[in-house]
Formats: sequence, structure tokens, C-alpha cells
Amino acid sequence: MRTPAQNAELALLLEVAGTPKPGNVDRHRDLEDLRFEHFLAGTVGSRDGLELAANGGSVGPAFERAVEGMAEQGGGNTQFGALLLLVPLVRAARDDLSQPVVEAVCEETTVADAAGFYRAFEHVDVFVADPPAEMEPLDVRRGSDAIPTLEDRGLTLLDIMDRSVPGDDVAREWVRGFDRSFTAAERLADADGPLTDRAAAVFLSLLAERPDTLVANRHGEAVAREVTERAGELVARDALETDRESVEAFADDLVARGVNPGTTADITAAGLFIALEHEAVTV
Amino acid sequence: MRTPAQNAELALLLEVAGTPKPGNVDRHRDLEDLRFEHFLAGTVGSRDGLELAANGGSVGPAFERAVEGMAEQGGGNTQFGALLLLVPLVRAARDDLSQPVVEAVCEETTVADAAGFYRAFEHVDVFVADPPAEMEPLDVRRGSDAIPTLEDRGLTLLDIMDRSVPGDDVAREWVRGFDRSFTAAERLADADGPLTDRAAAVFLSLLAERPDTLVANRHGEAVAREVTERAGELVARDALETDRESVEAFADDLVARGVNPGTTADITAAGLFIALEHEAVTV
Repeated sequence: MRTPAQNAELALLLEVAGTPKPGNVDRHRDLEDLRFEHFLAGTVGSRDGLELAANGGSVGPAFERAVEGMAEQGGGNTQFGALLLLVPLVRAARDDLSQPVVEAVCEETTVADAAGFYRAFEHVDVFVADPPAEMEPLDVRRGSDAIPTLEDRGLTLLDIMDRSVPGDDVAREWVRGFDRSFTAAERLADADGPLTDRAAAVFLSLLAERPDTLVANRHGEAVAREVTERAGELVARDALETDRESVEAFADDLVARGVNPGTTADITAAGLFIALEHEAVTV
Repeated sequence: MRTPAQNAELALLLEVAGTPKPGNVDRHRDLEDLRFEHFLAGTVGSRDGLELAANGGSVGPAFERAVEGMAEQGGGNTQFGALLLLVPLVRAARDDLSQPVVEAVCEETTVADAAGFYRAFEHVDVFVADPPAEMEPLDVRRGSDAIPTLEDRGLTLLDIMDRSVPGDDVAREWVRGFDRSFTAAERLADADGPLTDRAAAVFLSLLAERPDTLVANRHGEAVAREVTERAGELVARDALETDRESVEAFADDLVARGVNPGTTADITAAGLFIALEHEAVTV
């Protein structure tokens, strides 16, 4: 039986291997400087950090270790956001992978965990929106330079996530009990077909429901809304089943425009982990 | 820096992610009952066995553990042959990944290692040719029932590999110092482009040089020779670069016919491991 850390690894692999995943690296598409093989290496590199979490390690240091390992490949940031979801989920799975337990894991994070999170930014370049003025000393791009401010203000990792919403739907999972991730897991379990195909369908359904915050931060709210409306139109007519070409065209279009719904991919990965760990799906 | 076990994992992932890999599951193709996701789960499952080898464990038990984990997915046998190459290579990497050290690892295998190898066949269905009459008590399909015979005859795992040639080019690597695997690693290092593309080119070059023994065992020598001649013709005119469509057509044809050069894929995976471990290639 696979351990939680192994299921997390497998979730990352299944996520990148689904297709079509509009705007993301997927089984049939690379982005300009980001290729499939980078995600494979990123997954393998994440392992040590995921193991730390699985063995009861603190979320912050485990996350930093996972990111450090993930970044040991030439593509840069592949799965930072997915790991930010997976690490607390894996930590929770040690006891019981339920929403209350995951919430407790998040609530019990400390200032040291926040410090680990900030140090993670020193291992890889992650796109982030500019913070509001009052949060500027806590701009994540400061990395470990921000740690004294964290300590002065006594900010835990959950506090940091809390201050990142609205505007970051990975952080939003942290403050809402991983709602969308658990919903994604249910959808994966209810869907039919090979698991990578289910992942593609669940990705599209998530994108159709809520604009992707990475897209909004990079390209603005209007583009994010447009992408979500287009996904919604495809989902409404079950296009993956009835008109796959139109979904493939959507995927090609987003890739060509450099529009990357990465947050939605992260939540899909989290959903895959939950579904695998619950044995609600099999490979 | 990735450990040997991590590089072995990555080698398995890069191998399945190359394309086109005529007759094999690859980034763009599934076989009838064997899909890409099975290889992802097979890789993740192999990890514990690879770690055992990396930590100095005996080859036979490490191999059995790797196969047991690999088989925990719905596709059956994904990477048995690749693991039979990777486990001694990972074990050697603990000291020094060179041909003399790998040879020593193979020579130092024991009857207990042979027993572990036979037990591995109880975890997964592997296609094997019928053995010659005098080897019948040692038919691997007997699994652990053959162990008393192994012990009576004092046969080590290297002895078993030696008795499997000619006719099995994975076993042939064991008795020839992993010649083709090390050659594959050099070719990967000398090639250009993303590592998955190099893997596809090296796969084709290996197939062009020597008929695939899995194809020969399943479909006969004539088919194996035909496949190698066709690969040779493609390599001779650098078709991956000059006429990729013809290689894709070759791949589609072999998949349609159920002709699977799996042994060549195994050697490609071994070459990827050596190249990664030597840092002769990067991702």
C-alpha cells in the first residue's frame, strides 16, 4: 500500500500527465521554457520534504525542503503551489485525512513555520503579485530577510495565508479547510475512466467555477474571468466528451498566449492526493 | 543533489515520457491495457526497493521489494526488466557507478538473491519464454516453488542470468558488464536537446543495433529482425530530425500490431540512470 508521501508524489505525476489541461504543461504540451521533464524531476525532488511531513515534521521546514528539492531542475517553479497544499495534507494524513484534521494542522502552524515558508522563496523564483503597502516588509520575495518582521509581529504560517486572501486561491484553501481540494477529490471519485482523464475533467470543472488567481495576478481580472467563462461554456456542454477538439483548441490558445491557470492545477493535485489517500480512486 | 534512488526513479519517469518510442507506452501513446498512469504508479511503487539497494541491501530482496511496489497498479508489469537493471546499478552507485563495480555487484549475488528474484514473479505477471527442458524446474513462473532447486544446485542470481542468455538482453547486460546500458548513457550525454528527446533517439539507436528479445520471444525472430531493420533505416537517415512523421508512423504501426520492444526500453532506462548519476546530463 502506498504511503501518504508516495500518494503525494503520484498525485503530482498524475496531475501533470492529464490532458487537456488548458494553459498548463500536460501530457501533450510544453510551455515555452517549462517542459514535462521539469515536472518529473520536480516531483522526484519534492520527495524528501513530503516524507518529512509524513513523518510528523513541522509544515514550514517540510515545505521548504520539498521546494528546495523540487527546484533542482532547469525549469524553475513547477509545483510550488501544489506543494503548499500537499504538505499540510500529507501531515494530516499521518493522523486522519479529514477537513477538521487539516484545519487543525493549519491552525497549529507557528512563526517558525512561517519562516520556513519564506525561506522557500530563496530556492526558486515564484511569481507573486505585489503586496499591499502595509504588507511590504513581508513581501515574500524578501525571503529570509522578512523573518525578523514575522517574529516581531508573531505571524504564523496560517496568519500569512490569511493575509494572502483574497487574491491567492492556494492560500484560500488554507483558510477554508481545503474546501475545493476535498470537492475535487469527490469529483474524481464520481467520474469515470482512467484517472488522468478524470483529472483533466475535474481541472476544467474547477476552472469553470472560479477564476484562476495566478491568471488574475499575471494578466488581470478580465482575462481570468474570460478564461473561466470559456471553461464554463465547455463544461456546460460536456465538451470533453462531445467536442474534445474545442477543449484542445482552448488549451492551445492559452498556451500560445502564455495564460497559465496554475492555481487550478495545484488544487487538482491536492484533490488527486485526497482521492488516492482515501482509496476512492485507483490507478 | 539527487540520490541514486531518486535518479533511478527519475530515469524510469523520463524513459516513459520520451516519444516516439515505437511499440511502447510513451508520452503520446498508450497500449491496449497498459497506460501512462500505470508507469507513473509503477515508478512511485518501485521506490522502496530502490532505496533498499541504495542503502546497501542485497540485490535479490531489493529487487523483489521494488517489483512488489511496482505491481501495485492496474496495468500489471510496467518496469520489471528496467528494475532488474536499475537495482544492481543503484547498488553499485553506493560505491562507484562504474562497469567493474557493477560487475562485482552481479558476481557477488548469492543463492538468496536468486530466491528473491524468483519470488518477484509472484507479485506480477511477466511474459517469459518457455525455458529449455533441463531448465524446466527453474521456470521462473514457478516462483518460490523453484527455490529448493536453486538451493540444491547452488545457483546464484548471476548464474540464473547467465542461463538466460542468449534470448534475454536484460540478462545479457548482467553478464556483459552492462555494456549497452553504459553505451546508452554516453549517447545520451553526446546528444542534444531535452533529455526526453535524447531518450527517444537513443532508444531508436539501440533498437536499430540489435533485435529486441521481448519482441523475439513473443513474435519470433523474423518480426524482431524486421523491427530492427526498420529502426536501422530510420536511424541511418536521421529520421527523428529529418522526417519525424516516419518514426511516428513506425510507432503507431508497432502499437497497432501489439509489437512491444520492451527490452530496449529497459536498457534505455538504465542508460538514463547512469547518465543522470554521472551528471553527464541534466533536466
